[in-house]
Amino acid sequence: MKTGNQYRESLKKLHPIIYCNGRRIEDVVDDKMTKPHVNSAAMTYDLAFEPKYEDLMTATSSLTGKKINRFTHIPQSTGDLVKKVKMLRMISQHTGTCYQRCVGMDALNATFITTYEIDRDCHTNYHERFKEYYKYVQQNDLMIAGSMTDVKGDRSKKPSQQADPDLYVHIVDKRKDGIVVRGAKAHQTGMANSHEMLILPTTNLGPEDKDYAVACAIPVDAPGVIHIFGRQTNDQRRLDGDIDCGNSEFAIVGGETLTILNDVFVPWERVFMCNEYPYAQKYVETFASYHRQNYGGCKVGLADVIIGTAAAVADCNGVLNKSHIKDKLVEMTFLAETMHCCSLACSSEGFKTPAGSYYVNTLFANAAKLNCTRTMYEISRLAHDIAGGFIATLPYEADYKSKEVGPYIDKYLAANPKYSTEERIRMARLLENMTGGTALAESMHGAGSPQAMRIMIYRQANLEHKMDIAKKLAKIDKMEG
Amino acid sequence: MKTGNQYRESLKKLHPIIYCNGRRIEDVVDDKMTKPHVNSAAMTYDLAFEPKYEDLMTATSSLTGKKINRFTHIPQSTGDLVKKVKMLRMISQHTGTCYQRCVGMDALNATFITTYEIDRDCHTNYHERFKEYYKYVQQNDLMIAGSMTDVKGDRSKKPSQQADPDLYVHIVDKRKDGIVVRGAKAHQTGMANSHEMLILPTTNLGPEDKDYAVACAIPVDAPGVIHIFGRQTNDQRRLDGDIDCGNSEFAIVGGETLTILNDVFVPWERVFMCNEYPYAQKYVETFASYHRQNYGGCKVGLADVIIGTAAAVADCNGVLNKSHIKDKLVEMTFLAETMHCCSLACSSEGFKTPAGSYYVNTLFANAAKLNCTRTMYEISRLAHDIAGGFIATLPYEADYKSKEVGPYIDKYLAANPKYSTEERIRMARLLENMTGGTALAESMHGAGSPQAMRIMIYRQANLEHKMDIAKKLAKIDKMEG
Amino acid sequence: MKTGNQYRESLKKLHPIIYCNGRRIEDVVDDKMTKPHVNSAAMTYDLAFEPKYEDLMTATSSLTGKKINRFTHIPQSTGDLVKKVKMLRMISQHTGTCYQRCVGMDALNATFITTYEIDRDCHTNYHERFKEYYKYVQQNDLMIAGSMTDVKGDRSKKPSQQADPDLYVHIVDKRKDGIVVRGAKAHQTGMANSHEMLILPTTNLGPEDKDYAVACAIPVDAPGVIHIFGRQTNDQRRLDGDIDCGNSEFAIVGGETLTILNDVFVPWERVFMCNEYPYAQKYVETFASYHRQNYGGCKVGLADVIIGTAAAVADCNGVLNKSHIKDKLVEMTFLAETMHCCSLACSSEGFKTPAGSYYVNTLFANAAKLNCTRTMYEISRLAHDIAGGFIATLPYEADYKSKEVGPYIDKYLAANPKYSTEERIRMARLLENMTGGTALAESMHGAGSPQAMRIMIYRQANLEHKMDIAKKLAKIDKMEG
Amino acid sequence: MKTGNQYRESLKKLHPIIYCNGRRIEDVVDDKMTKPHVNSAAMTYDLAFEPKYEDLMTATSSLTGKKINRFTHIPQSTGDLVKKVKMLRMISQHTGTCYQRCVGMDALNATFITTYEIDRDCHTNYHERFKEYYKYVQQNDLMIAGSMTDVKGDRSKKPSQQADPDLYVHIVDKRKDGIVVRGAKAHQTGMANSHEMLILPTTNLGPEDKDYAVACAIPVDAPGVIHIFGRQTNDQRRLDGDIDCGNSEFAIVGGETLTILNDVFVPWERVFMCNEYPYAQKYVETFASYHRQNYGGCKVGLADVIIGTAAAVADCNGVLNKSHIKDKLVEMTFLAETMHCCSLACSSEGFKTPAGSYYVNTLFANAAKLNCTRTMYEISRLAHDIAGGFIATLPYEADYKSKEVGPYIDKYLAANPKYSTEERIRMARLLENMTGGTALAESMHGAGSPQAMRIMIYRQANLEHKMDIAKKLAKIDKMEG
Repeated sequence: MKTGNQYRESLKKLHPIIYCNGRRIEDVVDDKMTKPHVNSAAMTYDLAFEPKYEDLMTATSSLTGKKINRFTHIPQSTGDLVKKVKMLRMISQHTGTCYQRCVGMDALNATFITTYEIDRDCHTNYHERFKEYYKYVQQNDLMIAGSMTDVKGDRSKKPSQQADPDLYVHIVDKRKDGIVVRGAKAHQTGMANSHEMLILPTTNLGPEDKDYAVACAIPVDAPGVIHIFGRQTNDQRRLDGDIDCGNSEFAIVGGETLTILNDVFVPWERVFMCNEYPYAQKYVETFASYHRQNYGGCKVGLADVIIGTAAAVADCNGVLNKSHIKDKLVEMTFLAETMHCCSLACSSEGFKTPAGSYYVNTLFANAAKLNCTRTMYEISRLAHDIAGGFIATLPYEADYKSKEVGPYIDKYLAANPKYSTEERIRMARLLENMTGGTALAESMHGAGSPQAMRIMIYRQANLEHKMDIAKKLAKIDKMEG
Repeated sequence: MKTGNQYRESLKKLHPIIYCNGRRIEDVVDDKMTKPHVNSAAMTYDLAFEPKYEDLMTATSSLTGKKINRFTHIPQSTGDLVKKVKMLRMISQHTGTCYQRCVGMDALNATFITTYEIDRDCHTNYHERFKEYYKYVQQNDLMIAGSMTDVKGDRSKKPSQQADPDLYVHIVDKRKDGIVVRGAKAHQTGMANSHEMLILPTTNLGPEDKDYAVACAIPVDAPGVIHIFGRQTNDQRRLDGDIDCGNSEFAIVGGETLTILNDVFVPWERVFMCNEYPYAQKYVETFASYHRQNYGGCKVGLADVIIGTAAAVADCNGVLNKSHIKDKLVEMTFLAETMHCCSLACSSEGFKTPAGSYYVNTLFANAAKLNCTRTMYEISRLAHDIAGGFIATLPYEADYKSKEVGPYIDKYLAANPKYSTEERIRMARLLENMTGGTALAESMHGAGSPQAMRIMIYRQANLEHKMDIAKKLAKIDKMEG
Repeated sequence: MKTGNQYRESLKKLHPIIYCNGRRIEDVVDDKMTKPHVNSAAMTYDLAFEPKYEDLMTATSSLTGKKINRFTHIPQSTGDLVKKVKMLRMISQHTGTCYQRCVGMDALNATFITTYEIDRDCHTNYHERFKEYYKYVQQNDLMIAGSMTDVKGDRSKKPSQQADPDLYVHIVDKRKDGIVVRGAKAHQTGMANSHEMLILPTTNLGPEDKDYAVACAIPVDAPGVIHIFGRQTNDQRRLDGDIDCGNSEFAIVGGETLTILNDVFVPWERVFMCNEYPYAQKYVETFASYHRQNYGGCKVGLADVIIGTAAAVADCNGVLNKSHIKDKLVEMTFLAETMHCCSLACSSEGFKTPAGSYYVNTLFANAAKLNCTRTMYEISRLAHDIAGGFIATLPYEADYKSKEVGPYIDKYLAANPKYSTEERIRMARLLENMTGGTALAESMHGAGSPQAMRIMIYRQANLEHKMDIAKKLAKIDKMEG
Repeated sequence: MKTGNQYRESLKKLHPIIYCNGRRIEDVVDDKMTKPHVNSAAMTYDLAFEPKYEDLMTATSSLTGKKINRFTHIPQSTGDLVKKVKMLRMISQHTGTCYQRCVGMDALNATFITTYEIDRDCHTNYHERFKEYYKYVQQNDLMIAGSMTDVKGDRSKKPSQQADPDLYVHIVDKRKDGIVVRGAKAHQTGMANSHEMLILPTTNLGPEDKDYAVACAIPVDAPGVIHIFGRQTNDQRRLDGDIDCGNSEFAIVGGETLTILNDVFVPWERVFMCNEYPYAQKYVETFASYHRQNYGGCKVGLADVIIGTAAAVADCNGVLNKSHIKDKLVEMTFLAETMHCCSLACSSEGFKTPAGSYYVNTLFANAAKLNCTRTMYEISRLAHDIAGGFIATLPYEADYKSKEVGPYIDKYLAANPKYSTEERIRMARLLENMTGGTALAESMHGAGSPQAMRIMIYRQANLEHKMDIAKKLAKIDKMEG
């Protein structure tokens, strides 16, 4: 297992092409725009060495028998699934933001299951090949970017129907030694500071789309790969100072790229699906369900921080004990714990797959994520209600630190004497950034839209059975008999 | 273990005094007003003999090593807690209504924990005494009414401050052979068709209230006990026929009594708390938390029936495939499964008590129930939206069966030819009764008000810890250091 | 104008055929099942003679210049539309239930507009004919049942496609002196105690459905008309006493019939549409929009009563001053006033039609009703939350009045000494019945389903314009220029 | 009346001290940080000269009989109040953001009423003095910053109890020629580009707080006044380009300052309250109610833009016609129109004050704003749901315009061919900024917190009356009689 600093060192050895705001980022570890994202990912490494988190953060590899970071683990029990959720909540409490590494973990586990199923039916050899790759990931404690979402173009059309065939990643050449892929992946969380990416298909595919049925592993600095770093809310504050960032060490969201695959060569030992289009839909759903499980972990940890910040802001204002403030804190807690329960239940009710790994209860996983798409907005709303306008109109850090007006700000924004004005401002800035950025992030962090989840819930609602039990109680079954 | 019919026979041997609508109910098994409630409780007996439900419905007694009905079981693991939730959902799918028996189960288990704690601190002997009683319950497979809620009078006052000292059940005499209690218990679910009642205190008590700190077991037909059966929504429909009842075999709600304890004598071997007032509050909360766990089980089963009925009504109307109908069925399913997840999580995250039994995660148990207080209304609303006005204005069963207008009703209320008009009416009547009665029942089935739950959630929200992690991220901890 | 008693006398002169629970109702004024509905309708007559309500309850006829009851008025200004909404709220505060008469008022005004438009385009003479009929209604201060909703059969099919052609009311014969109609109308609010019914079409019609395009006026006791009185929640309580009814004088809902039209002859002077199918859709929408306007009036008045009852129940319990109770009363008030605002705005923003009458802003009318479909459930939920289980498990009136257990009930259900136990029970029974019955009534009182409203809102959302202003702000318009 | 450019010129003549991000803003008209705010305020001037908006944008002065901009008008009828709401919605559709000028309008009208009442009771002469000032505002078409919110310190304490007496603006000296005030006002919308500020008290005051009872007008560049410009979401994007701003011309929020009053002298003719503490509470509420009226105008206009943008984004994605997209657009429209109805109703139900001006129905004004505090979050959530992750991870404008990666972005973010990639990005950026910034702005734009509104609603809920009507229906009044 790597420490956080070993992770940083390993990143420095890579040379991905990353553009950001009109320039190239040469060193993701030190560049101000990416450093906080590296810091949060590094927490997934460092916490694995803290004795009190050992049980949550580490596991014994089912492939090698060695102790590994849980982010590279294949779940061997429902207990493993539950620990994943608790681990995610715990890390979020340390970073206050996305630490990006779960996407790759879920992509790995979805590929583990899918390659097994393809091999079983098609007599291919992907699963063994993938297990070798998985061992390599475990042994090097790699951070993998799970690369699912294509850019998609016109969403009413299938990949092969798009005006430009490259709007979904596809195989453009098959060679003796490997394949060549082209396309682009959007919303690539953590990509800039990962070691490799694991490409997955992104949607249901038909026979005419078979070249879009591709899964493979690619180093982030492979020839032909270009990353464009996405702009975030209040991104430039980190160039000026630390107060206005709110959470200057770890940032607010995960850091996403648009990643271009410009005829990238992938050797066969890193190819895990090649044209087997009938497996694309379930592959996507397996990844998505593992990923939806996470939200009742990581987002609940963020909610914990938001609740704590809102409580601290109320304390700064001298109103923490007012009944209407307490009511709002209770409501936020209730909403957060409800999300958490859904993720715990989808884990404890998981089951063993034919491949031997454990998989979640998908109905509950979808319920977890669908709750999340509503709850994080409501929690933000309640936090704003507690905080008041203060968080929307605070002066700039530079003014606060200036001789000219700094003293006025210090005087006039003083409140509860338990807190200095700077402390009050810091809490408010944390709340401002977390609620603004986190709520917006909901639009992206979905592993599919709410509509996609609703469709899965419909399929799993078991309406026929429910209609039958209703008919029995209404004594219609006897009439028909 | 008893079968349903053995349960019915055992009830016939008892002679409780029950008043209902100005007359006495002589035989709860056959009286039209109580028969459906007996039928639903009987399902908790009969299903224990169905092989496919054996794992959910039965357990091995930790006291005797014998196979027992789970309703008399002391949970020995989180697995037992999870099975309880799944059992409750499953039975609800069979009855479409409350089967009443969980209240006693929870009262028994709360008493098991509390007597252990009192003994440990006060060197009393309640726990052993109670274990004997518990064995008796298990051996005879008794249905116990959990008797917590007092009538309470002016809620802004403590028991000892009430104008009338009898508004909370209290000890009026201590004799050599036992105690004498007086008072009344409200909302006594299943009391009319139980064998015994287990009296618990109902609120936090101070030293001046010590005579109100009493727990004991009393047969439902003990001298001095009078039951007054509560009026239900549409109660009289069962006197006229079966269609308009919706669920004629099992009724819609649980059947509650106001039970008067008119100087009832209780021998010492059935007394499990006597003046130990400091334990009253936690006793109440233990019962309440066990009980709140249930709602994500039994109510989800009711929601399953409501969803199935709504789908069947939409099918009758020929619109089951419309996207807005599907959306509503998905939303209902999502809400129901969210409740279920909370109860599953409060179970799988349960823990062993000093007494040796397993107890739920109380924060999650409160979240389960608080969801339920909102969700069942929303599910009813969506069901009404799907069903339309049909369920509110249907003709009487007597008219439908009459020669004069029956044929008109048959002709004009015909819809999708898959269903006869009678079938359509039956589905609509089931939905009408379930959504009307179930929603109102929320007002009562709370094991405490939403406000009580919010207070418990506040106590468990761990705000200090959350404020600390927020301060750390805002770098306030370093400022103070 | 008639007084309430003159209205009652006029009903006694009619002899409609009404079936209810297997028997005929001979006298709607005195029969226990219909008397409360007559009483509430009578309030629309009596309040017109109270000086303080004269401005709301009466108007000057635009047809005759005489003073008339507003329920027979053709709105001559937005002020008239606003007064209608305030009148409805005020009457609801007096009756606590539906007084049924607005349906006919809206049917009359929709017919006034539609006949004008048909005549204008088709050179028919319906409008003058209808004005004569309207004068007759005004002069005799008649109560008219607005008869729109057909029984509809399979909802995925048009009227002419149904297996049974009679599932929508249609013209079966055209004779020299009039037409003959057949079919049935469902959910006929107030029909049993109206003088006449005004038949309207119920849906969009094509050329193949032209015989379903029919509007006409029919006395409730015309040959061939049979009414079947619908069963209501807790309907039979009124047979036994008054306490358990909650609102014994006026009942809880409006009283609806399924009305059979068994080849009913209608003379030409009472026919207002005959085959003009292209006008059916707008006719329906005109009626529906007028009717949706009402909900932010009458339902708000019901909400006022529910809020007052909940407050009184809290006062009985001694907790009216607790902050969580106040919060819920505020929330209920907020929801109710929001509905009211929508209806006021749809009125004040109304406009003059070509026919000369004033018509509502239909977008706001739909918003009013759509709010109502959600709000009444939420208000009920909050009322139950305030009241607690008391309202779900109260003893029967007969037991309360009995010698055997009445004194126990009196003793044990006593609370705040400001209220006697009977008073406390009466408030609880009122709340139980209003929240149970009112919420269920939402399923019916829709003048169309929420989905129908959403479709109308979509049509009126003016998305093209909104997209244009967005493009302008994003400076896309300049790019395209 | 001034045009937008005349307004800009008049600002250039003022020399306020404004700090922003560590430097002084010398010219608010041209400085990149303030220019968009000036542009939106300028729209309130320019639109007054557009013939089609003349009726909404202008009025006849009740003081001078001259044609004036409605922003300086004293409402003379409910029609004037309604026009205010419609004007606000219309301007928002042009700017897509706050144009700041309503705060001063409401402060002026609250002062008009309050000075009348003080004079009437205290025989002072504030009202005439204020009318002169009002004429001056009208004649010069001034933009006035309404200055209510003090910095408040510890909110559990009154002004005179604060550790620092300056935490509320107060009179520190009374001189022959005027008064001297000290303190600071927070969240001063539009202050940087206003001509003058109108100081109001901010809370209920007791006799010990009488020096805090002060109202007066002060030029923004009066000696002793220092403005500190608040930091906004994504504020620095406007330094780099226009695409990433979303709405580059008008910005996203209003532009707020923390304004320091450092012993500022105010001559008597500009003092409108001086120590009359009993009038402070109602003064605040009058301002707040006028201001809450606005939200169902201006915010609905913003909602219109958000709805249009969301629809355009869906169109870019090729999914505008999907039923789940339509459903969300309907829901957003419904929520927006509900807010609008509340503001229209609070206007049409307004009334004439003793001072002669018209004032809103305050219960409905509070309902309008309370809806807004919930609705804008829900509208944002639905917009994010429609848009998907695209809006959270878009590349920087600089990258889009670069030679190196611009072509990739152009290729891969192409979708529906009706739109260029740049158009798609522009719509997404508009949506990103409006939903992020607007939702956060809710925390500030409250004219008081939701809790403050709830308290006002409670006071106006008329519970006594509602309890009386409930008792009457439950026949309790007769029992007591």
